[in-house]
Amino acid sequence: MSSRVETIRHSASHVMAEAVLKLYPGTRLGIGPSIENGFYYDFQLPAPIQNEDLAAIEKEMRRIVASGAEFSRRELSKDEAKKLFAEQPFKLELIDGLEDGTISVYEQDGFVDLCRGPHVATTREIRPDAFRLQTVAGAYWRGDEKRPMLTRIYAIAFESKGELEAHLKMLEEAEKRDNRRLGKELDLFSTHEEAGPGLIYWHPKGGRFRVELENWWRDEHYRNGYEILFTPHIGKSWLWETSGHLGFYKGNMYSPMQIDENDYYVKPMNCPFHIMIYKTNAHSYRDLPLRWAELGTVYRYERSGVLHGLMRVRGFTQDDAHIICTPEQVEDEIAEVLRFSLHMWKTLGFKDIKAYLATKPAESVGEPARWEQALVSLRKAIEKEGLAYEVDEGGGAFYGPKIDLKIKDAIGREWQMTTIQFDFNMSERFDMTYVAADGTHKRPYMVHRALLGSLERFFGVFIENYAGAFPLWLCPEQAVVIPVAQAFDEYAKKTAAALKASGIRAKADLSDSRMNAKIRDAQNQKIPYMLVVGQKESDSGAVSVRYRDGRQEADVKLDAFMERALGKIRDRSLDL
Amino acid sequence: MSSRVETIRHSASHVMAEAVLKLYPGTRLGIGPSIENGFYYDFQLPAPIQNEDLAAIEKEMRRIVASGAEFSRRELSKDEAKKLFAEQPFKLELIDGLEDGTISVYEQDGFVDLCRGPHVATTREIRPDAFRLQTVAGAYWRGDEKRPMLTRIYAIAFESKGELEAHLKMLEEAEKRDNRRLGKELDLFSTHEEAGPGLIYWHPKGGRFRVELENWWRDEHYRNGYEILFTPHIGKSWLWETSGHLGFYKGNMYSPMQIDENDYYVKPMNCPFHIMIYKTNAHSYRDLPLRWAELGTVYRYERSGVLHGLMRVRGFTQDDAHIICTPEQVEDEIAEVLRFSLHMWKTLGFKDIKAYLATKPAESVGEPARWEQALVSLRKAIEKEGLAYEVDEGGGAFYGPKIDLKIKDAIGREWQMTTIQFDFNMSERFDMTYVAADGTHKRPYMVHRALLGSLERFFGVFIENYAGAFPLWLCPEQAVVIPVAQAFDEYAKKTAAALKASGIRAKADLSDSRMNAKIRDAQNQKIPYMLVVGQKESDSGAVSVRYRDGRQEADVKLDAFMERALGKIRDRSLDL
Repeated sequence: MSSRVETIRHSASHVMAEAVLKLYPGTRLGIGPSIENGFYYDFQLPAPIQNEDLAAIEKEMRRIVASGAEFSRRELSKDEAKKLFAEQPFKLELIDGLEDGTISVYEQDGFVDLCRGPHVATTREIRPDAFRLQTVAGAYWRGDEKRPMLTRIYAIAFESKGELEAHLKMLEEAEKRDNRRLGKELDLFSTHEEAGPGLIYWHPKGGRFRVELENWWRDEHYRNGYEILFTPHIGKSWLWETSGHLGFYKGNMYSPMQIDENDYYVKPMNCPFHIMIYKTNAHSYRDLPLRWAELGTVYRYERSGVLHGLMRVRGFTQDDAHIICTPEQVEDEIAEVLRFSLHMWKTLGFKDIKAYLATKPAESVGEPARWEQALVSLRKAIEKEGLAYEVDEGGGAFYGPKIDLKIKDAIGREWQMTTIQFDFNMSERFDMTYVAADGTHKRPYMVHRALLGSLERFFGVFIENYAGAFPLWLCPEQAVVIPVAQAFDEYAKKTAAALKASGIRAKADLSDSRMNAKIRDAQNQKIPYMLVVGQKESDSGAVSVRYRDGRQEADVKLDAFMERALGKIRDRSLDL
Repeated sequence: MSSRVETIRHSASHVMAEAVLKLYPGTRLGIGPSIENGFYYDFQLPAPIQNEDLAAIEKEMRRIVASGAEFSRRELSKDEAKKLFAEQPFKLELIDGLEDGTISVYEQDGFVDLCRGPHVATTREIRPDAFRLQTVAGAYWRGDEKRPMLTRIYAIAFESKGELEAHLKMLEEAEKRDNRRLGKELDLFSTHEEAGPGLIYWHPKGGRFRVELENWWRDEHYRNGYEILFTPHIGKSWLWETSGHLGFYKGNMYSPMQIDENDYYVKPMNCPFHIMIYKTNAHSYRDLPLRWAELGTVYRYERSGVLHGLMRVRGFTQDDAHIICTPEQVEDEIAEVLRFSLHMWKTLGFKDIKAYLATKPAESVGEPARWEQALVSLRKAIEKEGLAYEVDEGGGAFYGPKIDLKIKDAIGREWQMTTIQFDFNMSERFDMTYVAADGTHKRPYMVHRALLGSLERFFGVFIENYAGAFPLWLCPEQAVVIPVAQAFDEYAKKTAAALKASGIRAKADLSDSRMNAKIRDAQNQKIPYMLVVGQKESDSGAVSVRYRDGRQEADVKLDAFMERALGKIRDRSLDL
C-alpha cells in the first residue's frame, strides 16, 4: 500500500528516467524507488554528469509532466519481459530474480519501465512546481561494492508547491542548525580525523552542558528509584562469548586486544557488566525490582562513510539502565519507565512524542507466554500515557519486544531516541536467578532502557532543535556583563562576580571591542542574558538587560534580576 | 646513611642467615637487605620449608642475639673474598660484580657475610622481643624468572618491643579494614577474574559514594576556575606516536585494536586528548590560564600478580587536570593548585600531609631556565602553605619536576596520592603555542595534576582510613528507620519517606528480623543514624536516635533531627 504522495514520487522517478534516457541515449537503467520526501533513480550514463546538469533534466521532466501522458500497466511473461528489456542488462538481472506471472511494466509517453506499481493516472498529477532534483551521487549496483558504480540522482517531491517550499525551508533551517556547524561556532565539541574519526571531544562549553545534563539525569534517576553503577570499558572474551555478542554482533565490535594472552574487547554494550554485578550476590524476590542505571560509554564500529557529527559516531555514552524484576512486577515497571521517559522529555522541552511498538519476529528466543505478557505490559503502558503509537508487527529484536519513542523537533523532524526493550536472552545466557517467595529459583525479567539514547546523539538533536539557544539551565554561559565604555570595566567585573557568587554562570566582556560588537558577539554565542552596565546604572545599582530573544528591559535592580534568573534555573524553565 | 632502626634490621638479617645456616646446613645464601618495617633474606635451602618452620629459626636467632656476639668488619681483595665464599655461588656472582678494594665482609658469632654495612656493635642491640619472622615466599635470584627460585623469609623488626607491638596492631587493624574485605561486606564493589582481573565494578552503594564524591569534585573544580572536559577512551596510533607513549610507555599500554586498518589504543593517559582540544582553536595570552579537568578513565597494564583490590588495578579514573599558562602565570597557578589540593584533602578528613619535591634527573628535556623556574614555583608553593617536605634530588620525571603529596591515614600508613607535575615534553611534541602580547608565538607551560590520584585507589584508601564508616555526606545510606515491633512498620515507612523527601538517604528496615538484629545489621553496614520508632515516639512525633559511634538520644523531634542532619551533610561535616 502506497500513500498518494509516495505514488506521485514513484511516478516522478519514471518521468525522470524517461527524461534522462532522452537526453543521454544509451543510458542503462537501475532502480528508481520513492524515498522519504522524494525519490531517486540509479543510472549507468554514457558520460559522467554534475549537479549543474540537473536543470536540463528537470526541464525535460516538466515538459513530460505537462504533456499529461497516461501511465498504463501491462503484465508479461518472463520471456516477453526479457525481450522488452534486451538492451537493459540491470533490468534483465532483476527479471531473472522474479517469478513468472508476477512481472508487470508501466508505460508513459513511450517510456516503459519494469515496475510493480502503483502509479498516478497521468503525468499531470505530478505538479511541475512540487518537485526538484537535488544532487548527483555514486551508488553501487545493488549496494555491492564489487558491482558497477552507478549515478544516483536524488530528488524531492510533494503533492503541492507549498509542501515543497516548506520542505526546502526546513532544509535551509536544518543547514543553519547543523550540529557540526554550531558545534564549531559555539565551541562545544570537536572530532579529530588524525586521532580517529567518529570520536567526540567535549570542549569546556560542551562539557558544561554535559555536566548540567548528567547532574539532572542522576538526580532524577535517584529520585525515581534507580541506583547508579560504574563498570569497566573493557572485558575478557569470556564475557562476550557468554553474552552472545561475539556470535551475533562481532561486525560492530572492535578487534580484540591481547592482555596476558587473553582477548579483551572494548564494550559495545553495558548489559553483561550489570549482570556480573547482579551475579555477585544471591537475590531474593524481596530485593526486586532492581533499577540499575549507568552513563556507560560504549564503542561500536560504524563505517567511516556514515559517521556524521554528533549524530552517528563510533563511541558514545548511553544513558543506560537495566530493570531486573519478577514477572508480577513487570507491568508496573514498564508503565513507570514510560512515565519517567515522558517526564524527562517534557523537562527538556519536547512534547510531540510518538511510540512504536515492535512485536515478536519470526525467529526469537524466550517462552511465548513471556512474549505475550511483555507485549501486554508495553501496550498497557502506552495506553495509560495516552500516547499516539504505531505497531511494527514482527519488528522486535529476537530477544524481546520493545517500545521506541520518536520525538519531533522544532523544525518537524522525527528522531528515534528512547528505547525500552525486553530481553529474554541475557537472563538465560548468564543464568540469572532469584529466590521466589516459595523458595524456588526463578528467572527474573530483564528490561533494557536508554532514555536519551546516547549523550552524543542527544546533544546533536538538542543543538539542532534549539539552534544552539539552549534552555537557561543548560547554557554553558548564562549571562554576560557588558560595560557601555571602558570606564565601567571595574563595575562590570563586580557585577559579573556578584552573578557568579549567586550561582549564575556569568562573565564580564572586557575585551577591546565596542559595546555593540560585544552584544552581537553574545547574541551569536546564544547567551541568554546581556547585562549592560554604565554610569546611570552603577549609580542606582540597576542594569539594562537584553534577552537572547530580543526583549530589553531598562533599569532592572540587580538583586531582582538574579532572584528571577535563579528561580528559572532552579525550575529548569524553558523561557527566559 | 642508614638510620639506627635500618641498621638493626640489617644486622638482624645476618643473624637470621646464621640461624638458617646452622639449622639447614648446605644452605646457599642470596641477599638480605633491610626493608620498610623489617628485613628479608633469600636462601637456597636443601629442602623446602613452611611458615611453621619459622618458630625454630626465630628461637635460634634469639639464642644468637642473647649471646652478645660482636659484629666485626674486614676488607678483602677479590681473590680473598672468592676463597672465603667458595661454597656460596650466589655470593661469588655478587663478588664478580664488585671492584677490587671495595669488598667488605662482616662477621658475628663465626658467621661471615659479604656486606657493605654498617651494623650494630653486638647482637645484643637487636632486642629479642622486637622482631618477628613473618612469612616464607618465593623470589627469583636477582628478580630474574630465568634464574633459580629462592626462598625468601620476611621479618619485621623495630628498636623496641613497644614499636613491634604497635606495628602488629596496625597490621591487624589493616587486615580488618582491608578494602577487599569491606568492599564485600558493605557491597561496595567487586572484581571478576573471568571478565578480566584488576577491573573494578562499582555496585549501587559504591556508585552512590562515587556520585557524591564526583559531584563535590566537579563543584569544587568549577568554583576554583576549572573547566571540565570529556574525551574518548581510544585513539589512533598517530596520537601515541606523537605523544611519545608508544616509544617510552608501550609496556604499560594494551596491544592495539584494528579499525579500518589503523591501530587504535585504549588510553593510558588523558593528556594528548586535552592537547587536541587546545589545538582546535588558536589561543591568545588573554585566554590563559586554561585549567581543564576530566574524570578520565585510563587503562594500563600491570602484571596480574601485583593487582590488589582497589589499590592496584588495570583500569582507573584519574581526577586529572591540565593547566596551560604563560611563564608569568605559572608561579601563581602552582601555588593555587597546592592550596586547592590541601583544601580538598582537609574536607575529606586528611590533615597529616607531607610533600616530596622531585628535581631534575640526569636525562631530561626542556630548557634549563624553565626547569629552574618550575622548581622555584614548586618550592615557593610548598613554603607558602607551610607544608613539611623532603627533596628528592634528581627524582623528577624526564619531562619536568614535580610535587607529590603523601597523606597519612588513621592507622599511620602513608599513601602517595596527589601529584603536580610540570611537562616540558608534550607542549613541544604537539607544538602547542599561544600568541603573546607582543604578537609572537610562544610555547605555553603545561602542568599535569591529579589530586585524588585515581578514584579507585582513593576509594580503597578512604575505605581503609575510615574502616568503611564514611563521613555522613559520602555514606551510601545515611539513616535507617527501625520499628520496635512489626506493628510500627507503617510508621517506620512514613518516617523513612519523610527523611528521603528532605534529602537524607534513608530506608526503613521492615525485614522479619528482631529489632536488635536490625540495629546490629545497621552497625555492621556502618549506617550513621538508626532511628528507632515505636508507640511512644509515634504519638509525640519523636524518635530515638542511635549513632554509628555508639551515642544514643531518646525523644528527638524528627524535624529537629532532620534539620541537624541536613546541616551536617551540607557542611560535609566529619562528625555525626
